[in-house]
Formats: sequence, structure tokens, C-alpha cells
Amino acid sequence: MDYDTVRLDDENNAVVIIDQTKLPGKIEIISLHTAQEIWNAIYLLQVRGAPAIGVAAAYGIYVLAKRMDTEDYDIFYREFVRQKEYLDSSRPTAVNLSWALNRMQRVVEAHSGETVAQIKEALHRESVAIQEEDIWVCRMIGEHGLTLVKPGDGILTHCNAGQLATSKYGTATAPIYLGEERGYHFHVFADETRPLLQGARLTAFELQSSGVDVTLICDNMSATVMKNGWVNAVFVGCDRVAANGDAANKIGTSVVAAVAKYYGVPVYICAPTSTIDLNTPTGAGITIEQRPAEEVTEMWYKERMAPEGVKVFNPAFDVTDHELIAGIVTEYGVARAPYTESLVAIFAEKEKRAREKKEA
Amino acid sequence: MDYDTVRLDDENNAVVIIDQTKLPGKIEIISLHTAQEIWNAIYLLQVRGAPAIGVAAAYGIYVLAKRMDTEDYDIFYREFVRQKEYLDSSRPTAVNLSWALNRMQRVVEAHSGETVAQIKEALHRESVAIQEEDIWVCRMIGEHGLTLVKPGDGILTHCNAGQLATSKYGTATAPIYLGEERGYHFHVFADETRPLLQGARLTAFELQSSGVDVTLICDNMSATVMKNGWVNAVFVGCDRVAANGDAANKIGTSVVAAVAKYYGVPVYICAPTSTIDLNTPTGAGITIEQRPAEEVTEMWYKERMAPEGVKVFNPAFDVTDHELIAGIVTEYGVARAPYTESLVAIFAEKEKRAREKKEA
Repeated sequence: MDYDTVRLDDENNAVVIIDQTKLPGKIEIISLHTAQEIWNAIYLLQVRGAPAIGVAAAYGIYVLAKRMDTEDYDIFYREFVRQKEYLDSSRPTAVNLSWALNRMQRVVEAHSGETVAQIKEALHRESVAIQEEDIWVCRMIGEHGLTLVKPGDGILTHCNAGQLATSKYGTATAPIYLGEERGYHFHVFADETRPLLQGARLTAFELQSSGVDVTLICDNMSATVMKNGWVNAVFVGCDRVAANGDAANKIGTSVVAAVAKYYGVPVYICAPTSTIDLNTPTGAGITIEQRPAEEVTEMWYKERMAPEGVKVFNPAFDVTDHELIAGIVTEYGVARAPYTESLVAIFAEKEKRAREKKEA
Repeated sequence: MDYDTVRLDDENNAVVIIDQTKLPGKIEIISLHTAQEIWNAIYLLQVRGAPAIGVAAAYGIYVLAKRMDTEDYDIFYREFVRQKEYLDSSRPTAVNLSWALNRMQRVVEAHSGETVAQIKEALHRESVAIQEEDIWVCRMIGEHGLTLVKPGDGILTHCNAGQLATSKYGTATAPIYLGEERGYHFHVFADETRPLLQGARLTAFELQSSGVDVTLICDNMSATVMKNGWVNAVFVGCDRVAANGDAANKIGTSVVAAVAKYYGVPVYICAPTSTIDLNTPTGAGITIEQRPAEEVTEMWYKERMAPEGVKVFNPAFDVTDHELIAGIVTEYGVARAPYTESLVAIFAEKEKRAREKKEA
């Protein structure tokens, strides 16, 4: 894909994104300058995917802070918090949004003794660091994921855990992009992912524009491609992983996982450690968002596709049982069952590395 | 459902159908009088579903024969064959179409010594018999299917093997309709069935109009409803059953079956014996029709839902492995594994009954 999901245009003081609501019909790159433009872009899903939202918010609050015309720390701080809280209200459930904005606020507080100009420079460094970390995490997931497949393999993915959901590489697509750079020539099957069609609209788009061999299928065709022997591994993203390895992700992930189990295809959950929640013991503790019926019955269609007043069940996510998961791919390695132990080991590794980095 | 899928209007010399291309938006009952009107209705899928097409063709050729203005057998016969072959060309792959038309032609030949008026009466009896047999077969599938569930059960179905595909009851829906008449109050989940949405457009419509409690879901939500314990049995139709029990049916059936296996839900294939093909040893011998990409990428949508030129895999059917099938429900009872034996026994029972009927 030749377009950045989100980037900073420091010279023109803008956050630049590709408008995902227009894909795949139109490639529209837009520059966000004002608080309201940034807020709208997140609210309207012009930029989406938890990591990408975090980066957009960090750049957003930096761009707004840069424009604050004062040398007084108190005035600057009050205005910063006001703008930050406004941005934070754009999507209350996306965890990376408040995580990134809080991180930016802590920079302001940590530099309270310095000039406003110096604080602005620190904010610039922090927002760039947030994006660089996102890229590093995805690349590491790609490296670890790549050890699980071989050149020429068929890979099936569901929904969009791609470059469009992060700064670069994506999570589930990271092994695919890294493999492509190294001549692995994977054959990718993208589930269209009803009802919001992120697979058809976003994953098929970004893989195709990157020259990856991708074939679009309906969600109910996964058994056929697996039975035909065309799929060697399933890579999907996730929204939250419980301590026992149960993984909440876009609705339909557990359907793919059950089908893959029957056909002997391994399912890998690509999960930055930020999505692993050791405080939630099992998937039963994860609340599933229910969404409006019209997403299923009419939203995209020329006319209604189901009778008026029909009952619709439209959960946004499902939980895939840990026993259907062959491995959880994080930036610190691949966790294997039993996950109650391996996920703890992943966090121990993360802390060890952080300690080493600090000491160095 | 208060509308007949297909019926004879003998007084007005017409075949009357509900136009299924308009559902669920519009309920349009249309009368077919001419050969071209009947041909078009089948070709354009205004009437669809193999059994319903057979009945429409039988009534169609009767209506056309009735209007043939001659007392000369040879002239009548030539014109009959000409019209019959024309109707037969409307959908060359639907097996019930030529089966019903050939059956009507044999009636003409068997009555060659009688007057044209008498032949027309015999054709009337035969066409009515074809529809009555269709209704009997579906009702018996319903009776046998009903022994597999209990009042209040949750039932999941895929695609439309309903009343709209037959004269009455449907095949997969027959246990549901019979149960409803007897106060079973099932809770039905209808898969929307991408890409052609027969579940959303037809099954949800006909069950809702019949007062059955039906909930529409996307195909990728089956795991969630099963995990929640809402589904006690899956009933689906089929296009062809091989001698070992492998069953070809609408794409996605084998996805439902693999998911059901994981969650311990039995899958029943509802199959008139006319769809059981003992000459095909396994599902590997069943050719799967591939359909156009635009059914997936744009056909129903306000705008394209996938990038231009993206590769699409769009099989119309899939084959469900016999080991995923808990039973095959026919008009002569429920066949259980090993199907190589039980399906032969079903045909022995069919022949025994036919012999007894002949002797009586």
C-alpha cells in the first residue's frame, strides 16, 4: 500500500490520513488541522483500528498543542487538557485512544519546569515514539509469525488487522507483508467479514495495492478453501486476550477457528501485549458489543435485504476458545498452550527487556 | 406464509406464482399464461428451488397443452413436444425440471389411443399428482424430522430449503412448520447466506409471515448462537447426497456443520429420495458450480464493496463430509451412519411401499 494510514505533516501542522470510509471506491488523503477535524475523523471511522487511532490522537494533540499561542505553563496546561479531553470523547471504548492521550499529558506534566517551546518539542518526540513503537510491535509480530509458515503457503485472514488498522505492517498481516518483502509469495484468502465488510473493503484493498496475491471469499467459504488444501495457516488480530488464551476478535473469528480445527489448519492470534489482559481469567468475562440490526438488513444495500421488523442478532465480536488457538503471536514471541503459563512468561520477558533497556 | 409458491389456476388457464425476485420488498403474485411467460419465470428465478420448478413446469406444460386447438393426436403430440422442449431449455441444470416434463410427456404417449380431450384430462391429473407428491414428500420429511427435536428447541437453518423452494412445508423447514402447527414454538436462526442472501430474503420472510419465531444472523455468527446454547439442531436442505452420505448443498453448509460438531449440535440433512444419488460414491464426485465474482463484490450494493479487479472465489455449493452429519431425513425415515448401508435401506423401503401400493 502506497499510502500511510496516519502520518504527521509537521511543516503544515496537520495529521494526514487516508479516509477509510471511502475505500475501496476512492483513495482520498485528507489533512486534519483543527480539533474538530481530528475528532470527526476518529468518530466517523475515517481512521480506525485501535493502534492507528492511538497514533492519530497523539499526533492530533501535538498539532493542537503546537498551535497554542502562550508562554505561560498554566494557560498552556489548561488548554492542553481541555483539547485532550475533547479528542478523548470521540470514541469512548477504543482503549488506545485514551492510552495515547494520557501518555502525551504525562509528558506535559513531566516537563512542567521547562518552557512551552521545550514542552512542544517533548510532545513531538513522544508522538513520534508512539508511532515508532507501534511499527516496532507490528514488525516483531511479523517476524515471530513468519516462523510459523513457509514460502508459498496459503494464509486465511478475517476482518482487517492490517496496515489500515495500525501505522505499518498491521498485526495479522505483518507476517504476510514481511514475507512478501522476502519473496515468500503467500496466497492470501480474505474473508469479506459481514456485516461491515472490512475484509472486502479494507484487507482486500491493502493487500492488492501492496502486490500480495489475495483472493476474496465470503465468510461461509472458509471450509471449501481449507478442504481444498489451499490454507496452511490462519492469522487474525484480536481485541482482547484473556489470561487462559480465549481471544475476543471480530465476529466470525471463532467460526473460522472451528472450521480450521476440523480441517487441521492452525489458527494464530496476532496480539500486541497491550491487548493481553491477564486480569480477565477467561473469555466469559469479556463483554460483547451488540450492534444495530440495519447493519445486517439494509445499510449497504440498494434496498432492504430482509423483511421489515425481522429480529436480528448482530454481535460485533466473538470469543474464540483457547483450545482452538494454535498460538498467540506477540512482539515478544509466540505463546503456546497452556496459555495461563505462556502469557505470564511473555510479560516476564517484556519486563526483563524494559529493565535491560533502562539499565543500558 | 399466506401465499402459494406455485399453484394452478385451471379456470383462467394460468400458473400462479409469487415473484421471488421481488421478495422481501414486494409481495407480487403473478399469473403465467404463455410459454414465454413460464419460460421467463423459471429462467429469471421468479420461481426457484428444484421441487417448485418441477411443479411449475408440470402445470405450465398442462396449461399450454390445454390451449392446443386440435383433435388430431399427431399434431397435438408434435406441438406438445415442441413446447415441452422449450420450457426444458429455461434452466438446463435443474434436474426436477426435465424430470417433471418427461413425466408429463410419458402421459401423452401412454394415452395415445384416446381423444385429445381425454389426454388433456390425464395431463391435468398428472400435474396435480406431481404437486401432491411434492407436498407428501415434504410433509413426511417434516414428520421424521420432528422426532429429532422437542418443543421450545432452537433450530438453525442455512439458505432457503423452505416453502418457497417447494409446494408446501419445504424440506429443511418442514419440521419447523409441522412443529409450529402442533405448538412446538421453535426458535429459529436463519443464516443470511451470502452471497445471494436467500436466508435473509426468503427464509426470514417466509418464516416471519408464518408466525414462526425467527432471528436473522450473518453466516459468521453461527458459533456465537451455538456457544450460547441457543441451537439444539441444524436442519438444512441438499442438492445431492452421495452414497456415503456426503451432502452437497448451498455454500456455507459445511461451515455450519464443522462449527456444530465443535459445539456438539447435531446436523440433519433434509433430503427427498430424489436427491439421493447412489451412483455417486462420495462427495468428491460432485461438481461444484462456480459463479460470477460480482455476486460478491457489487451485485446487491449501493457501490462496489471490494477493489476493482480483486480475485474472487465464489463457489455456489459445498460438500459436507458425512462424518459431520447426524442424520439424513428422507420421506421414508431418518438414515444414520454408516450411510452406505442406511441409504440403501431407505431405497429398499421406498420400493417395498411402491410394490405394496401397486398390489393394493
